Order: sequence, then C-alpha cells, then structure tokens
Amino acid sequence: MNVLIIGGGGFVGQKLARALIERGELNGKSINSINLVDVMEPGAIDGGSIAVNTSICDITDTASVAEAVTADIDVIYLLAAIVSAHAEEDFDAGWSINMMGTLNVLDRARELGTKPRVVFTSSIAVYGGEVPDPIIDHTFLNPQTSYGAQKAVGELLINDYSRKGFIDGVGFRLPTISVRPGKPNRAASSFMSSILREPLNGQEAVCPVDADFPHYYLSPRKCIENLIKGAELKAEDLGQNRCMMMPGRMWTIGQLIDAMNAVAGPEPAKLIKWEAQPEIQKIVKGWRFDLRPEKALKLGLTADESFEDNVRYYIEDDRP
Amino acid sequence: MNVLIIGGGGFVGQKLARALIERGELNGKSINSINLVDVMEPGAIDGGSIAVNTSICDITDTASVAEAVTADIDVIYLLAAIVSAHAEEDFDAGWSINMMGTLNVLDRARELGTKPRVVFTSSIAVYGGEVPDPIIDHTFLNPQTSYGAQKAVGELLINDYSRKGFIDGVGFRLPTISVRPGKPNRAASSFMSSILREPLNGQEAVCPVDADFPHYYLSPRKCIENLIKGAELKAEDLGQNRCMMMPGRMWTIGQLIDAMNAVAGPEPAKLIKWEAQPEIQKIVKGWRFDLRPEKALKLGLTADESFEDNVRYYIEDDRP
Repeated sequence: MNVLIIGGGGFVGQKLARALIERGELNGKSINSINLVDVMEPGAIDGGSIAVNTSICDITDTASVAEAVTADIDVIYLLAAIVSAHAEEDFDAGWSINMMGTLNVLDRARELGTKPRVVFTSSIAVYGGEVPDPIIDHTFLNPQTSYGAQKAVGELLINDYSRKGFIDGVGFRLPTISVRPGKPNRAASSFMSSILREPLNGQEAVCPVDADFPHYYLSPRKCIENLIKGAELKAEDLGQNRCMMMPGRMWTIGQLIDAMNAVAGPEPAKLIKWEAQPEIQKIVKGWRFDLRPEKALKLGLTADESFEDNVRYYIEDDRP
Repeated sequence: MNVLIIGGGGFVGQKLARALIERGELNGKSINSINLVDVMEPGAIDGGSIAVNTSICDITDTASVAEAVTADIDVIYLLAAIVSAHAEEDFDAGWSINMMGTLNVLDRARELGTKPRVVFTSSIAVYGGEVPDPIIDHTFLNPQTSYGAQKAVGELLINDYSRKGFIDGVGFRLPTISVRPGKPNRAASSFMSSILREPLNGQEAVCPVDADFPHYYLSPRKCIENLIKGAELKAEDLGQNRCMMMPGRMWTIGQLIDAMNAVAGPEPAKLIKWEAQPEIQKIVKGWRFDLRPEKALKLGLTADESFEDNVRYYIEDDRP
C-alpha cells in the first residue's frame, strides 16, 4: 500500500501522514510508503519502517504530475489548493491550480490505468446564494466565490472520472478546520483559527466579524480521522454521487470563545481585538452554516462533540 | 447590436438566426449583424438589411476563438457542444470541446473587457442519480453522463465569470428538443425526434425504449423564443445563480405518438419499429423527467401547451 499526498506540505497533509504512520495500515494492508508532494518541499517526517519521501510537484505541470503520480500508488490524497481569499484575488491562479491541477492529476491516473482511490478535499464553500436552509445532501451547489466554483468543478470531475472507471474517487466538503495550527494564511476563514490559536499562544489576534457570526467547524483531529475513513469507504457504498459534506458543527464566534474560556481560563480571550473587515465579511457571510451531512454520518464519518474538544485538541496536539 | 452564434451551423443556431432576423431587434436595439460560426461552415442565411456572416471556428483553439469573439459583439449565444452519446464515446472530445471550449470563449470575453451577454445552453442531462423528485430550482446537479458533467461545469464557469464581471451570463438547461428537424445525430435523445420526424416524412424509424418511457420535452419553436427572451433578461433579475431549467413538459413516448396520430392520422405511427437498445436505454433512463422550472417560468419563459403543438410546429416549420 503506497500513499501519495498532494498538498503534503500543508498542515492537513502533514498531520495525515503522521496519522497514517501511526496507524501503519489502510484498508487492512500495511503501508509501505508515503509520498508527500507540494509546490514547496514538504517537511520531512520520520516514518520508522514506512518510507516517507518528500518532493516538489507543480500540479499545473503535467510532467511534474507524471513524476509524482506513478503506477505503484494505491491511494492519492488530493489536498492541494489555492485557498479562498487568494483564489478570489488571483483569478488565474485559482482556476489554474484548483481546476486544471485537479484535471492533470485525474488525467495522469487515467493514463496509468491503475484506478487509484483518489480522496479529494472539496469545501463547504461550494454552498451559497439563494438555496434554502438547511443544506442537505441534495442541495444545489451555488458557490459565491471562485474557490467554491473550482471545488464544485473538482467534484464533477471526481464523479465523472470515477463513473468511467478511470479512478475510484471520493470527495469531502470540508468544514472550516479550527483550531488550525501554524500561521494565518490567505483563506478568508483564517481568523476562525487565529482568534483562538494566537491568544492560546499568548499573542493578539483580530476578529473581523461580530460575536454572533455563525459558522460550521471541524477540528483537525476529526478531519484527519475522516480523511482516513474516506480512503477506506467502499465504492459500492458511495452511490451515484461520490462527493459529500464532511460532518462538522455550527457554532458562533461567541461560542468558540466561551469554549476557549472554559478550557483555558479567561485570559486568552482578552487578546482578541475586534475590527470589522468588510472584504473578509463579504466572503464569509456568503458561506452557509446550517448543514446536515446525513450521507457522511451514515457512512461513519463524525464531527466533534463540543468546541471545547477542538480547543483541547489544539493544546494537546499543536500548541508550541 | 451585433450577435455571435457559436454553434451557428446547428439547427438551433440556424433557427435562432432566422428568428432574430425576423425580429430585427434585441433589447430594443436594432440588430446590425449576426455572425454564425461553427466547426464546419454554417449554412448561409439571407439577412436582408442585417449582415449575416458565416465562418469556421474551433472553440478548442484560442486563436480561432479570438477571431470569432471580437470587441463589437454584444450578445454571444454559446450553443456549440459535443452531444451526449458522442461525449460518452469520446471522453477527450467531450471535455475538450464542452468544457475547455466554453472556458476559451469566456476567457476571450474577459480579455476583451466588453462584458458581453453570454447565453449558454446547458441541458437537463445535468440531473440524475439519487436526488428526489420533483427536480426543483435548488436540486443538486448530479449528472450521470460526461456530457451532463461538462454542462454542469459550464454553468459554474458562467456563474463565476459573471460574478467577477467578466461577462453578463445566463444559462438554460434545455429539455430534449422535439420534433427536431434534420437527420438523426449522436445525441442519445436523437430517437425522441426520429420516431416522429421520419414517420411524418414517410420513413421508418426505430424506437429503442418502451411506450411508457417518460421524458421532458420542448419544441424547437418555443426553445428559440426562450433563447431570445434569455438574451433580454436583466442581470439583476437573475439573482445568485444565472443558470436555470428552460421550461418543458413531461410526456411518455406513447403520448408523443398519440399526439402525432391526432394531428397527422394513424398512418405515420405504423412506420415506427420497436427495438430495445440497451446502450441508449442506459443513458436516457438515467435522465430525469419530473422537472419544475419555477424560476424560468417567473422570468417569463414558457413551455408548449400540448405535444400536438410540437407536431404541428414541425409540419409548419420544418417538414421538407
């Protein structure tokens, strides 16, 4: 069992690799190698008896994709993407990397004829606009950002390439992952981790929306668990649409901060500065938060029990 | 007012051009020119005082698209496509023409900065799989053919390029158009016209499904009317999703034949041969027929009153 993680330098890719190493197997088969590729050299990880290789891959370049996607790969995690606010600013980069890059990976798999399991990370940013609440499995994808549109195209590709037998694909619309470790990035949702992570690290952070802003969250730990379950789902259980919501839960910013207070005391929250940012609000207020991931729940994927768990996981797993 | 019809050699493009010439104006402005482009030289049409130009355009070639899409064009009808059964047989041609071709046209419009109205023809083939009946405006697009997937991608592109202000797009999911004039083509739905058209012309035709097969239809005449209304819809009335079902009606094959009997007597139906064709059935039985095009109806688009009208329109407009 050889695993390729495209976007293996990101925090999800790195955590996923560590979790797979700890587990040692996937679908009942021992993992022999994990290949981490990204647009910049991914961080090295000690895999013990599992060979962990790192290399650079530009998914917009078919030759580079051909080097990364080889006939011995059984499972491809396709995590690489230009994130939301970045894709909104740089229209060409977003479509090139998020759509054409995905297409290049799928076309390479088709060329090989090895029908790998491809686990694609879509996003709840595919939802938006005039669709009724709650969002259910059969709700129209109506993205109001280029990032969301690119992810929705990726889902159509995953489904059609799977239907034709070129890959064995599955896709998950990720909730906003919080508390995300590391530094702020160009995702419009970046603050939804920053306002907890930085204060928990003793640093100031800016909250660009009001405390009653509701959103849909999942912890990194649960996300990784679900991505591993995702690789093990049987094709025949996926039905006629292989892409689905990954379970999360809806909380307001105020509830996130209450959870942090409950776990870490009242001091961290004093480091949050409240500064309305219209450009960020314009994006995130178009996102949906009342989601009912029935299909994924039936397939055994899970959400966090309370946001206090999310805060604890950050402290246990990631706090420097 | 200059109009470009990409796919101008097809029967919809040709009928649309004739209807626009007869009308003489669009959005209250006189039409100066109609440019018909297609992968093969479109049939010439006498436009009277309106200049009708024909030329060859390969939408997979950006230079060819740049020649066709010029700064003086106000309205682009983007009708060109590889049809359903053809796209199912030739995976590369389908994605190349139906997706990349659409992208090339939109990128050219973006490059010009003239924000033309783009009227895109999607298809009810975007619906399929495990979504509940009836299909409403907010139903998940779950195509079960490559053609349907390519059209669904086209819709996402139309919406995102419009949202960013590069085009002023609108898209319509066309019902199966019947009675379509001309010869059978490689659409899986081709028989849904053939079994009426050929008998009305005194020729035999094959019906590959049973008489109780239900489907969703629109006459060419109504389709053209709706495409012209589509070009005149105001952007502010389209909301956060510019693509919608074009109204049609559901009838069974038996009802189509009853309508033909009522209009043309019992002789034509005797020319229908019933021969089950599993490959065609596999495609068309994945299509949906219980559609409720509420948004389009509110915007003033219409369906046929009865299939007898469709038969009469064929006899009046198209029978050789």
